[in-house]
Amino acid sequence: MSQDLFARHQAVLEKAVEAAAARGYWSPFSESPSPRNYGEGAAEAGQKAFEDARGKPFPLELADAFDTVGGESSPFGGELGITYPRLSADALVAASTRALANWRRAGPKVWVGVCLEILHRLNRESFQIAHAVQHTTGQGFMMAFQAGGPHAQDRGLEAVTYAWQEMARIPGVVTWEKPQGKNDPIRMEKRFTVVPRGIALVIGCSTFPTWNSYPGMFASLATGNTVIVKPHPGAILPLAITVKIARDVLTEAGFDPDTVLLAAHEAGDALAGELATRPEVKIIDFTGSTANGNWLEQHATQAQVYTEKAGVNQVIIDSTDDIKGVARNLGFSLALYSGQMCTAPQNIYVPRDGIDTAEGKMSFDDVVAAIGTAVEKLSGDAARAVELTGAIQNEQTAARIDEARALGLPIVADSKTLTHPQFPDARVRTPLVLRAEADNPAIAHEWFGPISFVVATDSTTHSVALAQRLINEAGALSFSAYTTSDAVAAQVQDAAEEAGVSWSLNLTGPVFVNQTAAFSDFHGTGANPAANAALSDSAYVANRFRVVQARRHV
Amino acid sequence: MSQDLFARHQAVLEKAVEAAAARGYWSPFSESPSPRNYGEGAAEAGQKAFEDARGKPFPLELADAFDTVGGESSPFGGELGITYPRLSADALVAASTRALANWRRAGPKVWVGVCLEILHRLNRESFQIAHAVQHTTGQGFMMAFQAGGPHAQDRGLEAVTYAWQEMARIPGVVTWEKPQGKNDPIRMEKRFTVVPRGIALVIGCSTFPTWNSYPGMFASLATGNTVIVKPHPGAILPLAITVKIARDVLTEAGFDPDTVLLAAHEAGDALAGELATRPEVKIIDFTGSTANGNWLEQHATQAQVYTEKAGVNQVIIDSTDDIKGVARNLGFSLALYSGQMCTAPQNIYVPRDGIDTAEGKMSFDDVVAAIGTAVEKLSGDAARAVELTGAIQNEQTAARIDEARALGLPIVADSKTLTHPQFPDARVRTPLVLRAEADNPAIAHEWFGPISFVVATDSTTHSVALAQRLINEAGALSFSAYTTSDAVAAQVQDAAEEAGVSWSLNLTGPVFVNQTAAFSDFHGTGANPAANAALSDSAYVANRFRVVQARRHV
Repeated sequence: MSQDLFARHQAVLEKAVEAAAARGYWSPFSESPSPRNYGEGAAEAGQKAFEDARGKPFPLELADAFDTVGGESSPFGGELGITYPRLSADALVAASTRALANWRRAGPKVWVGVCLEILHRLNRESFQIAHAVQHTTGQGFMMAFQAGGPHAQDRGLEAVTYAWQEMARIPGVVTWEKPQGKNDPIRMEKRFTVVPRGIALVIGCSTFPTWNSYPGMFASLATGNTVIVKPHPGAILPLAITVKIARDVLTEAGFDPDTVLLAAHEAGDALAGELATRPEVKIIDFTGSTANGNWLEQHATQAQVYTEKAGVNQVIIDSTDDIKGVARNLGFSLALYSGQMCTAPQNIYVPRDGIDTAEGKMSFDDVVAAIGTAVEKLSGDAARAVELTGAIQNEQTAARIDEARALGLPIVADSKTLTHPQFPDARVRTPLVLRAEADNPAIAHEWFGPISFVVATDSTTHSVALAQRLINEAGALSFSAYTTSDAVAAQVQDAAEEAGVSWSLNLTGPVFVNQTAAFSDFHGTGANPAANAALSDSAYVANRFRVVQARRHV
Repeated sequence: MSQDLFARHQAVLEKAVEAAAARGYWSPFSESPSPRNYGEGAAEAGQKAFEDARGKPFPLELADAFDTVGGESSPFGGELGITYPRLSADALVAASTRALANWRRAGPKVWVGVCLEILHRLNRESFQIAHAVQHTTGQGFMMAFQAGGPHAQDRGLEAVTYAWQEMARIPGVVTWEKPQGKNDPIRMEKRFTVVPRGIALVIGCSTFPTWNSYPGMFASLATGNTVIVKPHPGAILPLAITVKIARDVLTEAGFDPDTVLLAAHEAGDALAGELATRPEVKIIDFTGSTANGNWLEQHATQAQVYTEKAGVNQVIIDSTDDIKGVARNLGFSLALYSGQMCTAPQNIYVPRDGIDTAEGKMSFDDVVAAIGTAVEKLSGDAARAVELTGAIQNEQTAARIDEARALGLPIVADSKTLTHPQFPDARVRTPLVLRAEADNPAIAHEWFGPISFVVATDSTTHSVALAQRLINEAGALSFSAYTTSDAVAAQVQDAAEEAGVSWSLNLTGPVFVNQTAAFSDFHGTGANPAANAALSDSAYVANRFRVVQARRHV
């Protein structure tokens, strides 16, 4: 069966290779949860599967578990009450090492075929995963469905696609023939075998447990490595479902299910650090805090370490012929999932002398007011607002809003607590927008959550220099500018290239700076402190496997 | 002019791309020093250029030099007496940073065009470089010409080829069009710009100053980074000539010559470590000792670090129908450049019960004797032998022969001091071959130089297990087996794949395990402790640049 899986999904893979080269719009996984795409009853079945899972041990059989663990609570209220097997680092590494022996010999077509089948089955379980994502991350249902389901699957497929592409460039067997003047040439047969690096560790985050984990998980698995998935203790379920599906496919294909393992653990225990520094662990994919990411980069030197950390995302407003569009678009970006996205804007730079608009000069205060109004408007109708904001994933993020308010800065839009019509205990907050001066040290680091600053600058040149400096120092995963001037756009482009950040120009419509599309937008650049890799490109996959060559005379 | 360079060399680049994919035999740089290839008088002009350079300051103008440095002596006798400008780490980083501003904006075609022109000019200077390599490394002239000239240029071109290939996969501008049901699609223009990482540091070695430095130097330069070349204090001249040629081309193309800098320094000073840990240095290519390579991997965590370190190269003799061919081939591999190659074999495993040959069972002692005889034979005629062995690069390597002899192990072939007919002061030694038991700890680490062990094992299975374990622990850059059994060959193949080492089967003819051919053989695998990268593959180049994306509605 394991050979068939590649053939079964080959057509999709070929389209994916084309899409990754063309970088236009493409996705094989529908982002609309309509029954036309997912079948009648799929929504209900997914919800039931999630509800049935609550309050029970999760059905994952892992040998050598010494305990169970699990304390997830929904940001929308209530405990999930699910427990997972808990293994020591030794037991995880031993099981993964055993599984590697056979998995490594299977070769690229089998590795890729198994990955594609896993992704296919994950797609069928998108509703169950959506509920699991919603009730661990606090995302609204639609975002949980899209970002946690098809968009995450897209990013997983993208990683498999790049991995396949790089491995496919390695020939199987070739003949090398070196001319020897009038004598017979020297002739050798050379055989090239793709081999994995070893064990790969994937460290998930609490806000996008699937979207941020699938690229690393699939990039490593598709290149023959075994994978240990370590979820954030607050968002285990989405990855437990994922690991279970992966193990089912592996078992059916004749491999040791321990090729993919779940490393559920207690918050604050030492498991992540222990696993990350084991000599057998050769690859680490990490999403999380700058402190933990830097620790891995500095201490897990035996491994290839791919990190996505924090950054300070920035927006430059220079001039516009659609200030309402600017404010509406920015307001949406600030409110979406309450700013709990690594791409959410934080610092918005506006010259203190105001900006040029279609209606003439607009003062700084009027620009600020437009943004404030747009944010307040989005929060006006609680029932609609909560779908956009979702809930705050954890207490620390909620508390950070109060910390920011305590800075004592002028308030552009105040954060309000909303009551969710469906989940009365949900932790819902609207964005806090403050006004700051350019030299305020508070704007130089990340305020994760619905917290942003409109910053008065001396000029657009000052805005660009400030943004460039902060990106160089603190990193950024998104950057955006509004200008009607080609010269300013060119200035921003050069600053973005120097600082190593991707950027968007004049987003006033239905595209938001927070969002990236697989197969077209690289997520992160790997060129500034916010991340050392991009999703996905050759650099993300090419070093997850190596090539062993054998040569002999023929 | 800088745009023309790409066009001038495009045909060669296209052939190189094809060659790297097909991995058959290909080289654009002739390895024969014949006047038919290099022109009448080229040999004499190259020798004269080298002789003229001796005893003078090297003609390299670097601003901010605080001193001069240089104490190279020829392993064939005599001081070179050449001095080079000496700069502080601060001055080097400042100059490289200044040069980066313009170089980064030039883009892939210009970067690649400049690299191809540099390689073209290096090829024309192959004779001068050959003499410089010979009188710093101790290589015989022919090896110095081939490995220091055309073969090094091949490896440089190979790196440029891979870099170009990866950069060419990034589209310039594309349109993204997302369907919106019955509404107009969302349409965006997306622009992708390749940007460098920053400053690249190349740390050269004393035995193959050009061959081991060109891949990293050209991979980094071709991807828009500026390069600081830090030669080994004992082998500065070959890289000084290289840097001078690179700076000439850069200047003619309108760029700051400091895009490529020479960091000549005093042996034992702190310059390498200072440069390697500067935050501006984003890429490091290193060839040298395991201790220094590991230090870089553990401390230069701000940079991508590509290392080639030491290893224990191994040979398994199981059975053969051509024992003379085996012994002759191995003897040559041991004597070639006196084992001062990272790929020279060290441990030769032979079952103590002997091996099967075409003439029936052959005893362990007879196998050992055959190897000993082959080695002695190669050393018999001093005039011919010195062309093969060259000279010992430094006193420590010569002293290591005595250390090995002091182990008190039975001597299979003793190392002799030969008198070079042309250079009476040359440090010439023939190989020392010792007999050891499998549990002797001496065989578990590298003995750099003409030192090897014939090791008695319990069986071929024992030989394979021992080789596999030592490769996992100590690494290896080459591995070789002699067997007439398909089952044993399969066993070695699996061990090689698990340990991550490339290997050769039954080399009895004119190909030696020490040698690899660019565009066909990967040098190193990056999968065992001897090296964390291979020359050259996608993984070697893909992370030396990043992509900055800009998107806007259209």
